[in-house]
Amino acid sequence: VASEPPAQASAVETGRQLGRVNNFSDGLFAIAATLLVLSIDVPRVSNAQLPDQLDNMIQPVLAYFLSFAVVGLFWMRHHQLFGMLRASDSSFAAINLAFLAVVALLPVPTELLGRYGADTAPVVIYAVFILALSLLLRALGAHALRAGLADREPHGRWQLRGRWVLVVFGLSIPIAFLSPPVAMYSWILVAVLPRLHERRRSVRDAA
Amino acid sequence: VASEPPAQASAVETGRQLGRVNNFSDGLFAIAATLLVLSIDVPRVSNAQLPDQLDNMIQPVLAYFLSFAVVGLFWMRHHQLFGMLRASDSSFAAINLAFLAVVALLPVPTELLGRYGADTAPVVIYAVFILALSLLLRALGAHALRAGLADREPHGRWQLRGRWVLVVFGLSIPIAFLSPPVAMYSWILVAVLPRLHERRRSVRDAA
Amino acid sequence: VASEPPAQASAVETGRQLGRVNNFSDGLFAIAATLLVLSIDVPRVSNAQLPDQLDNMIQPVLAYFLSFAVVGLFWMRHHQLFGMLRASDSSFAAINLAFLAVVALLPVPTELLGRYGADTAPVVIYAVFILALSLLLRALGAHALRAGLADREPHGRWQLRGRWVLVVFGLSIPIAFLSPPVAMYSWILVAVLPRLHERRRSVRDAA
Amino acid sequence: VASEPPAQASAVETGRQLGRVNNFSDGLFAIAATLLVLSIDVPRVSNAQLPDQLDNMIQPVLAYFLSFAVVGLFWMRHHQLFGMLRASDSSFAAINLAFLAVVALLPVPTELLGRYGADTAPVVIYAVFILALSLLLRALGAHALRAGLADREPHGRWQLRGRWVLVVFGLSIPIAFLSPPVAMYSWILVAVLPRLHERRRSVRDAA
Repeated sequence: VASEPPAQASAVETGRQLGRVNNFSDGLFAIAATLLVLSIDVPRVSNAQLPDQLDNMIQPVLAYFLSFAVVGLFWMRHHQLFGMLRASDSSFAAINLAFLAVVALLPVPTELLGRYGADTAPVVIYAVFILALSLLLRALGAHALRAGLADREPHGRWQLRGRWVLVVFGLSIPIAFLSPPVAMYSWILVAVLPRLHERRRSVRDAA
Repeated sequence: VASEPPAQASAVETGRQLGRVNNFSDGLFAIAATLLVLSIDVPRVSNAQLPDQLDNMIQPVLAYFLSFAVVGLFWMRHHQLFGMLRASDSSFAAINLAFLAVVALLPVPTELLGRYGADTAPVVIYAVFILALSLLLRALGAHALRAGLADREPHGRWQLRGRWVLVVFGLSIPIAFLSPPVAMYSWILVAVLPRLHERRRSVRDAA
Repeated sequence: VASEPPAQASAVETGRQLGRVNNFSDGLFAIAATLLVLSIDVPRVSNAQLPDQLDNMIQPVLAYFLSFAVVGLFWMRHHQLFGMLRASDSSFAAINLAFLAVVALLPVPTELLGRYGADTAPVVIYAVFILALSLLLRALGAHALRAGLADREPHGRWQLRGRWVLVVFGLSIPIAFLSPPVAMYSWILVAVLPRLHERRRSVRDAA
Repeated sequence: VASEPPAQASAVETGRQLGRVNNFSDGLFAIAATLLVLSIDVPRVSNAQLPDQLDNMIQPVLAYFLSFAVVGLFWMRHHQLFGMLRASDSSFAAINLAFLAVVALLPVPTELLGRYGADTAPVVIYAVFILALSLLLRALGAHALRAGLADREPHGRWQLRGRWVLVVFGLSIPIAFLSPPVAMYSWILVAVLPRLHERRRSVRDAA
């Protein structure tokens, strides 16, 4: 008795599943970005004490904007990857689900960073989250190429940025044990280094 | 006076309603998955006490990943079922709504399991939730076939997995009264047994 | 100087706006349904005390299912209405926004009902919310017909149910000042009366 | 080695990205509107004390409706702008992300306004948020025109309203240091002034 459908029906189904995974992922990114607001506590004090308490909200708000940018950038890279896909398989769906589970968990390291600031534990935990997201996205892309789900890799600019994310956040973990603020501010390099790198390359290409 | 539209208009409407129910369900799954993060509490202590408190977050984070996988797998099975549908009716919509209400309630048993760990009450409650989801999904599929809303059943692999979910989580309830940790770790069999079962069957089919 | 676009462009825009309003509304219904889970508090006690505390969760869970059904039913009636529409205007968008604002506020009366149970204040507040939803949906339908945005009214079955919601929840408000539990249990009539009414009518029509 | 795709492929990709940014934005608006409910606290008191505590919920509920209207109106203006677009670029995506980050942060000033009422700090913070939203939306529109992403500006009515939002909320900030309630009630002018302005203009145009 054939308990599985014929190969062709399965291919159509895979195509349909791709659209579904895409919509599910998009929805999850938008919700995860919006839920970051939950990492900010509004103080419960008397009206007279409020102005003094507002200072304590600055750090969580900065952590919120940082994580919002992180979700936005990983959303773009995720879409870049999905734009290359022709099909999906169950391993791809599983890696994607693991990736999305880490995305949706971001309010937790954001709240830690916002509440405890530039201290070793929250900085290391935050960097580990970003590394996990980067590595899962790479695993997703690598599987897609290996299993023939995509024709070609997302183009160079995104790959380059992805590599800098790994380098900068990876190095910030040992640095956080020496100086958490230096480790945290080093993250800004993720926005700066790829541009320098690209500019240098485009100068070289033009020559 | 005819207060109801003619049958044909109603059929078109049923078709349109199907798309709506599908979108509503997809959105709800994505939101339910993302809201699972609310089951994790970030400790409010001094910076010096934070490292000791982080241990308390491991169990809730594991419960989060477990429930995220549960939502992901039921989302896939739900889609599998919807891929078979040609129409919807009001009973189908009602069972589907009950199913989604239990999906959206998952943060509650997840928080119980994360906070109280491998103890009888949280393990039994969690297993009851998974059983309820499985039975409602089966009721949804059975109604679709009986009412002629679908031509054929979702193919065998998913049905098989669904049956193992019923067996494993069903048996874990009496076990939880003897040993909650054994009951909880037995849930891993849901990932293992269907593969063994499939491999054995495919060996037999090849013979 | 013409600061407004020509009438035709505006009509196309109105059509496009309709799709947008529809998607926005759908998303909001799904999120509002899912956020109802926030009205349930998970107790923070020792493992030994947990079994005694679970009783306190039953009432909030029942309120959750009640409100989930409310969101589901209003979502269906809202879609029924949108299925009749050919266009939208700014008044329609404003009434729709007010309706959605009340839908998204449902976790508040749900939490009140779940926490304080069958007492005058929570029962009256809950009934007022349902009345507000019903009246806003009626205003939305009435405006659509009056402004020529829809050709015909949603068919009789939904209108009938809508009328019973007004009657049952409206009467439950004065009753709640005498006996809150009677008022609350009277809400079940919303599920029963329209069916009796329909059966009687179809018997009469057949005769 | 060419690490970038040819220009044409990039244009197609930009078009596809536009649809994605649109869906992501829509989802985020719907979620941000729904999450506003989190700014309302349900009191935890005995049943006997509940009626007295309900008064404290009025102010947060009013702040909720205010912010829901704000999200709704900015959503409409955002869509108005996106209706003009033919393409997107990375600067547009970055400004849009910053705009959405402020939209998703609205529950925080809403909770401050709801909890602390017409006091200088919450009124100023709320007005600053609205100004930030207005200015980011203007920056988005200005960039779209300058970079040739849109053919023409959103039509006059919305621009006019946008300008009144800047004037009214901008002036309310210095007023809030003299009289917070006057500053807060002045916000109502945003709904009144554009209509007066339009009526006067249409009278003048007709003459």
